[in-house]
Amino acid sequence: MRYYDEMPVGTVLETASYTFTKEAILAFAREYDPQPFHLDPAAARDSVFRTLVASGWHTASVAMKLLVESGRFETGMVGLGVDELRWPRPVYPGDTVRVRSEAVGVKPSRSGNRAVVRWSMSMSNQRGEVVLTWSSLQLVPGRPRETTKVDSP
Amino acid sequence: MRYYDEMPVGTVLETASYTFTKEAILAFAREYDPQPFHLDPAAARDSVFRTLVASGWHTASVAMKLLVESGRFETGMVGLGVDELRWPRPVYPGDTVRVRSEAVGVKPSRSGNRAVVRWSMSMSNQRGEVVLTWSSLQLVPGRPRETTKVDSP
Repeated sequence: MRYYDEMPVGTVLETASYTFTKEAILAFAREYDPQPFHLDPAAARDSVFRTLVASGWHTASVAMKLLVESGRFETGMVGLGVDELRWPRPVYPGDTVRVRSEAVGVKPSRSGNRAVVRWSMSMSNQRGEVVLTWSSLQLVPGRPRETTKVDSP
Repeated sequence: MRYYDEMPVGTVLETASYTFTKEAILAFAREYDPQPFHLDPAAARDSVFRTLVASGWHTASVAMKLLVESGRFETGMVGLGVDELRWPRPVYPGDTVRVRSEAVGVKPSRSGNRAVVRWSMSMSNQRGEVVLTWSSLQLVPGRPRETTKVDSP
């Protein structure tokens, strides 16, 4: 999909899956979210989560990875923003997730050169429990106009 | 800061800085956001950005890193969600950013055991331009009640 007329309201993307290894959870936490419950299995036992859980930013980044690797988006689209980013359940080492994203709004510019597409995304784990949701805005180009060929005189 | 009475409305956190190296931008993109304009300087030249830019999820993860490493939050707080996540300007290799976050709302539970604190966050680059904003919700414990000591008879 390259142009916004290829993703009308109701378009659904379903991605491949990703398994969160303990190593990936720890590596992300060391770099970007060094809180004890993301970083250290022993300290996590004393935390509100009682065990190691993935950083919410790790979870969100994996959602992006799965969407990009779905191969459904060609270059030229730009993420404008995300609303209502929520983590209803933790992600634990060994969890396998996949993503479903649905186009819920398409607002073409006045010229029709591009549109803002709103997507409703949810990530579920191997038990079908939702672990991440968001509502995102993406700028998508319009199909180039057919240019009329003019024969040279 | 550990309890919500330590972060009344108007509390401001200012973090240290972080410089986005080209290597870190590429490493994040390879793992989590393999789009050409995050992954490949040559392909980025043909993109809407005209040059390599950091993944928005990389930028958001760095904001989290800076907030955690500010040392102002002790363990026990949990991020509930993020709204109005926006990337008003790209982040380029070599950019140095810092974060400012302000408590804009504190809603204690009925029992006073905990509160939901809303933070308004912005990340700026070395030219003072805003590159990332969000409004986040954090669950923060209340201060434990003083327990009355009862002398044994």
